[in-house]
Amino acid sequence: MSTYKEAGVDIDAGNEFVKKIKPFVKSTWSSNVHTDLSSFAALYKNGRGKYLVASTDGVGTKVKVAFKTDTHDTIGIDLVAMCANDVLTIGAKPLFFLDYIACGNLYRNHKNLEDVVKGISVGCMLAGCSLIGGETAEMPSMYGWYEYDLAGFVVGEVKGKDIISGANIKKGDRILGLESSGLHSNGYSLVRKIFFDDLDLRGVNYVDELGKTVKEELLEPTRIYAQEVLAVNKKLKGIANITGGGFIDNIPRALPKGLGVEIKKGSWPVMPIFDFLQDKGNVAEEEMYRTFNMGIGMVFIVDNKFKDSHRKKIENLGTKVYDIGKVVDKEGVKLL
Amino acid sequence: MSTYKEAGVDIDAGNEFVKKIKPFVKSTWSSNVHTDLSSFAALYKNGRGKYLVASTDGVGTKVKVAFKTDTHDTIGIDLVAMCANDVLTIGAKPLFFLDYIACGNLYRNHKNLEDVVKGISVGCMLAGCSLIGGETAEMPSMYGWYEYDLAGFVVGEVKGKDIISGANIKKGDRILGLESSGLHSNGYSLVRKIFFDDLDLRGVNYVDELGKTVKEELLEPTRIYAQEVLAVNKKLKGIANITGGGFIDNIPRALPKGLGVEIKKGSWPVMPIFDFLQDKGNVAEEEMYRTFNMGIGMVFIVDNKFKDSHRKKIENLGTKVYDIGKVVDKEGVKLL
Repeated sequence: MSTYKEAGVDIDAGNEFVKKIKPFVKSTWSSNVHTDLSSFAALYKNGRGKYLVASTDGVGTKVKVAFKTDTHDTIGIDLVAMCANDVLTIGAKPLFFLDYIACGNLYRNHKNLEDVVKGISVGCMLAGCSLIGGETAEMPSMYGWYEYDLAGFVVGEVKGKDIISGANIKKGDRILGLESSGLHSNGYSLVRKIFFDDLDLRGVNYVDELGKTVKEELLEPTRIYAQEVLAVNKKLKGIANITGGGFIDNIPRALPKGLGVEIKKGSWPVMPIFDFLQDKGNVAEEEMYRTFNMGIGMVFIVDNKFKDSHRKKIENLGTKVYDIGKVVDKEGVKLL
Repeated sequence: MSTYKEAGVDIDAGNEFVKKIKPFVKSTWSSNVHTDLSSFAALYKNGRGKYLVASTDGVGTKVKVAFKTDTHDTIGIDLVAMCANDVLTIGAKPLFFLDYIACGNLYRNHKNLEDVVKGISVGCMLAGCSLIGGETAEMPSMYGWYEYDLAGFVVGEVKGKDIISGANIKKGDRILGLESSGLHSNGYSLVRKIFFDDLDLRGVNYVDELGKTVKEELLEPTRIYAQEVLAVNKKLKGIANITGGGFIDNIPRALPKGLGVEIKKGSWPVMPIFDFLQDKGNVAEEEMYRTFNMGIGMVFIVDNKFKDSHRKKIENLGTKVYDIGKVVDKEGVKLL
């Protein structure tokens, strides 16, 4: 049986680490900092009742799929998505983005990295933000000659009165699930283990169960939910970005203490990729929901009375959205 | 003879890459973006006559010295310094910082990474900014079990009227050089080659010529010039952060077209580390000035009439500052 921990990623160790570093981090905070490490992004007061919202992220070992398939023009979209979706959870509009690229050899990599930056530019256009800077570091001996790692940083802005804090969430509120485009950028250590080690597949192989090639499935760019959030944000009570830690870890980050959710499995179509991974990797169901987005890339928590109008607005943007559950007065994520 | 290119780092390839990606990057810019890729940081209009100034950077292979000597509590200061010094060149006050840490294994690294974050916190206090967020990514198979890479991201703010753009620089302006604390965070691919490969030294070895151990010299944190810049910024015409590319590449970044500088060697004390590297590595002098800071970590360009008052203000902060040259009407950096 495959677990994410066995594939080398320890989410508990990550949570423990965050607890340990908190006191040092807090010691640097000015009175303008309005945030907590457990939320999706960090807020900094910007005067005139506005706040800057910042987030940093990478794409994990999804970069290794780009190396393996020698396809580099979409991974930059993932990078922007991972950062932008986090600031969107606060209701903020992304303003600008910066990238950090570290590689083993710039000369050997320059064509690939041009493709990476093209992808980042496309991602920025999808998120509605400007790519204003970046650093390309050449670090021989840290990275393989044809390898690189990516980190992204986004700054957005939100009016204080429009911050989506989750504070008003109450029992009975509905959970709307917005379709993901596939795996997004999480769980790739496990995905790569199953596809490339266990099944010995290559990028060009067509997989019947998926109806596409390995490369098409594994490099599908992470969806950016800028339009969707900004279309309905004034009436959203909470947003969860379903990233590392899946449903189980991410939905509670959007909820006030004392509340939890019940999610009704089967209320949305789970994409073939998730069934395939669960089956071929022999992954336990709870592990699946703790590692992958299971077809839902972002969750909106809305008052029951706005449920249908919100669904309509989101669907008008061409994005499928499902009523997948409700808020209950017991903490945690219960899968029904 | 050692060159930086031979050690695996190609600064020309870096400059070429920046030219290639420029059109994609520019296609994302909104009317709020006021920047050019050749400056030290990026500006974004923030209303009320103010601008946000952002920069991202890493510490290069200085991290490898931290691994080799198993000493992790200062490299975070370097990370903040590399970013903060860039936004300071515009005259901006650093507001907040985010870090991206990628490692091979979080469980095995958590003590080291706690030290890294402690260092980042110290760096933020020195720069006067708040550490408001970060990402710690576990990427087995990308990084060795006990290895990590770091990227930092800082946002500062400056009033439009206080932006140090270099536009007013004219022939005859003086160059003030602020002492560095040593190597800062540049040239480490070459430094490591000379110390660890050519000379086969270890971190604990005492080096007579340096008057300290290898570890003390190589892990000396990069100086953060926040106090110095903010003490005199309203009368500064230009600032250059002497990072990768040394004197030769960085001073021209602060100058308008058509102007250059003459730098008088010997007008400041070059630290023993630079003589040692040049001697032991048999590095050509121009290569030294194109790779290292040579004892000057930041350069202020000032009107001749403010030269002495500025020096006094900076020295009052306990920072040594030298009158190292002047602006001339011929482009480039001439070493006299």
